[in-house]
Amino acid sequence: MDRPEFALIDWIRSRVVDRDPVVVGIGDDAAVLRSHASRDWLVATDMIMEGVDFRLPDASPELVGRKALAVNLSDIAAMGGRPTAAFVSVALPIDRGVEFAKALHAGVLDLADQFDVVIAGGDTNSWRGPLVINITAVGEPLGSRSITRQGALPEDWIFVTGSLGGSLAGRHLTFEPRVREAKSLVELVDLHAMIDISDGLAADLHHILDGSGRGAIIEASAIPISEAARTAPGPLTALQHALADGEDFELIFTVSAEEGRQLLMRWNDATPITCIGRITAEPGCWIRYDAETREPLPPLGWTHALK
Amino acid sequence: MDRPEFALIDWIRSRVVDRDPVVVGIGDDAAVLRSHASRDWLVATDMIMEGVDFRLPDASPELVGRKALAVNLSDIAAMGGRPTAAFVSVALPIDRGVEFAKALHAGVLDLADQFDVVIAGGDTNSWRGPLVINITAVGEPLGSRSITRQGALPEDWIFVTGSLGGSLAGRHLTFEPRVREAKSLVELVDLHAMIDISDGLAADLHHILDGSGRGAIIEASAIPISEAARTAPGPLTALQHALADGEDFELIFTVSAEEGRQLLMRWNDATPITCIGRITAEPGCWIRYDAETREPLPPLGWTHALK
Repeated sequence: MDRPEFALIDWIRSRVVDRDPVVVGIGDDAAVLRSHASRDWLVATDMIMEGVDFRLPDASPELVGRKALAVNLSDIAAMGGRPTAAFVSVALPIDRGVEFAKALHAGVLDLADQFDVVIAGGDTNSWRGPLVINITAVGEPLGSRSITRQGALPEDWIFVTGSLGGSLAGRHLTFEPRVREAKSLVELVDLHAMIDISDGLAADLHHILDGSGRGAIIEASAIPISEAARTAPGPLTALQHALADGEDFELIFTVSAEEGRQLLMRWNDATPITCIGRITAEPGCWIRYDAETREPLPPLGWTHALK
Repeated sequence: MDRPEFALIDWIRSRVVDRDPVVVGIGDDAAVLRSHASRDWLVATDMIMEGVDFRLPDASPELVGRKALAVNLSDIAAMGGRPTAAFVSVALPIDRGVEFAKALHAGVLDLADQFDVVIAGGDTNSWRGPLVINITAVGEPLGSRSITRQGALPEDWIFVTGSLGGSLAGRHLTFEPRVREAKSLVELVDLHAMIDISDGLAADLHHILDGSGRGAIIEASAIPISEAARTAPGPLTALQHALADGEDFELIFTVSAEEGRQLLMRWNDATPITCIGRITAEPGCWIRYDAETREPLPPLGWTHALK
């Protein structure tokens, strides 16, 4: 029997130390994870595909592996959680060889180490098709409960982390999942609703509004626009990029106005947070340009722009 | 924004009822699962790919979806566990359309219902490549601990469920994951080691021997050979098919000789169990044809025969 993936799996295992919460890791039929503090587990899963979520060789295999894990860590953070373990499935193009596969997994493993996430299992395959990676991340809530999209209340302030737009220029591969920032937020305030920006600010804000049965008014002048959005080629304005580009992987969250004020005073993380508007009781999402001008803000969003 | 997968996700959600252990299911950044009885979670993940693990249209989309879940339920059962939730990621060929996608998910959902597994999340994508499905299944140990590949002891009896070989004729798509049988086994005996047969009897037995640091002697005449193995085309004997074909998804397990005897008397499940040999203290795996003839049994196994 010639199974080259066994050698690759051995190489991956040699780089992984089983530790909390992993009791049984890579190499059995399933992993065994043990809960100590929390009764709740968070589970996120994302599949990324060559030609859709990245292009080879524009992206290095390390960055592709990194992205596959990072999008999942971002999902766990967006639930107010701390990622602890991950499971990595790959369909490797057979002609790219084992060094490519190792580089891909090195990208996963380095980011996992950075966030103290244990690679606890996976499924390694090769085929004649394009590269596909699916990662499932497991985590636990940082506070007493998970933060969903459903808790936004009227008069909540709406915040975003970082700056938005233009991620296609490179940041969609190199972004830092906001795990540390989510931890600080859970410690500092009572988060009402939270989501990470994968589809785009407008689209993901709509997910919170739909989930919470609320509306919102966004202040155009308050939206933090990234340098990449300002310099992006094409007909869209920088603001349009910030509203509609996807894969920012920043957090959108809402807190009460009182807590919002306190948060702005107490926030001392290197990643900025910005209040961009407020939740309304009546449904409908608006963007206000000045005291007299407001327009409906539809759920614009990224539709696999790489295609 | 035109995101046809949103309509598909809504259709999937309409077929799923969130229930124990799922607190937050499809539709947020991550699922929230809550542990009641057990502190341990089992997590298995498998990716199956068009042209490698199935061919279209030889396999219907329902059977492909069914297989993607079934292989994971088999993994959870092989740990002595009960599957409870699953996460379904797909890369759908864009030209096959939404009815194909629904049929695929119907295959997943029907099997999930049969085994009381909740679909708690996933990632739905379309692309111009072949069909890829990754499922991650979560479960909990049925007994006080999980059953790994590492606990086989000298003089243990080695059992298999069902009959072996020839799964490529169809059974690799239609097999019943041995969830019920695993539950009966956990209730009846102290399982020392267990694995499901994905690579083939010989290869997977070697996984137990390697994990446990033991050897084995298998009785050729005792191996339960399936009808499909007896009628398989090609040069291999039925016994060779039973030893080397993969994807039987039967269980191999070891128990003490004393418990093995009791088990044979007390087993009353419709799925047969057969004692095929015994574990030895000294490493090395042998197959015995009669009192005088034995040969080494290498880890023969399936190497993606569909390729």
